[in-house]
Amino acid sequence: MDARADIDRLIAAMARLPGLGPRSARRAVLTLLKKRETQLLPLAQLLDQVGRSVRECLNCGNISTDDVCEICTAAKRANGQICVVEDVADLWAMERAEVFHGRYHVLGGTLSPLDDIGPEDLRIPQLRDRVAAEAVSEVILALNATVDGQTTAHYVAREMEGCGVSVTGLAQGVPIGGELDYLDDGTLRAALSSRKAY
Amino acid sequence: MDARADIDRLIAAMARLPGLGPRSARRAVLTLLKKRETQLLPLAQLLDQVGRSVRECLNCGNISTDDVCEICTAAKRANGQICVVEDVADLWAMERAEVFHGRYHVLGGTLSPLDDIGPEDLRIPQLRDRVAAEAVSEVILALNATVDGQTTAHYVAREMEGCGVSVTGLAQGVPIGGELDYLDDGTLRAALSSRKAY
Repeated sequence: MDARADIDRLIAAMARLPGLGPRSARRAVLTLLKKRETQLLPLAQLLDQVGRSVRECLNCGNISTDDVCEICTAAKRANGQICVVEDVADLWAMERAEVFHGRYHVLGGTLSPLDDIGPEDLRIPQLRDRVAAEAVSEVILALNATVDGQTTAHYVAREMEGCGVSVTGLAQGVPIGGELDYLDDGTLRAALSSRKAY
Repeated sequence: MDARADIDRLIAAMARLPGLGPRSARRAVLTLLKKRETQLLPLAQLLDQVGRSVRECLNCGNISTDDVCEICTAAKRANGQICVVEDVADLWAMERAEVFHGRYHVLGGTLSPLDDIGPEDLRIPQLRDRVAAEAVSEVILALNATVDGQTTAHYVAREMEGCGVSVTGLAQGVPIGGELDYLDDGTLRAALSSRKAY
């Protein structure tokens, strides 16, 4: 009956996604309408499927289809290291780089007193419990190099005092391929003060 | 079981939309996963609903939930004018502007011999039929001011010869708010040659 009302609601829903505004959402919906069988209906089905099956890992906060995620259940990843990240996107970034072989702990954000986000909103108590329960030897703070991220890292590091684990953070410095001319002062300062012997 | 496989397929499906690349699709999917109840599941349901109910108007090519769309069935829009547009997006643009009160004819693209798109792929024969059947007095060619759009407009105008309708096209000139300094030569030339008496 009211095709336009449904389509308008679909466009509004798409426009709420990051990276899409009202105009590009309209364009995306028109593309989907033109490719109903090959794009629209498969996308609807995938969304429904993912939406019904996916939840948070009770242990680490990763996305999972089970109560505990694949990384937490994999025995070979219990190497005594826990990598603390802000978000699932950061966990994915670490996994794509294939450089870390331990387990993760997803905080779900950063501390923000102004937004009323305290330690208990960020799975920090759960991190303390895991350090005790999983025979953890090292907590690696892989939080974003932003003010919020580093403030949260400091807080977590202090919380870990007396737990008998070593707490480390990602190195800061010149990114691979980075040209000094284009780097900000803060990065140069960090790179210089953490300089290494050749 | 394989949450990541489903999520990866969902990201790939989102990345095929215009305006989204692999990286922004990943960000969009993560946002959806975080707002499962309020965004992900409603979006899935809307897509499914629209996908099942929507089809092409048999008369004009507009998007519709019935065999013939609301504009084609509205008696007051049978004013003898048919506005020919390339795409449903263009029809929506005209409707948003609320400047045209007749009916539409959506070609579904432009002529393109290289891509093997001929008149019969573009609902041009159907336009001839409508001109005869709907007592049309004017065909307004509102095609894009691109080379392809204007080539198609010329073809349609020639096809209409002998049908007893007047064929018009949108005026070309300086857009409202346009500054001459920023306009291309072609637009200035068109604006000058179509100049009007004050």
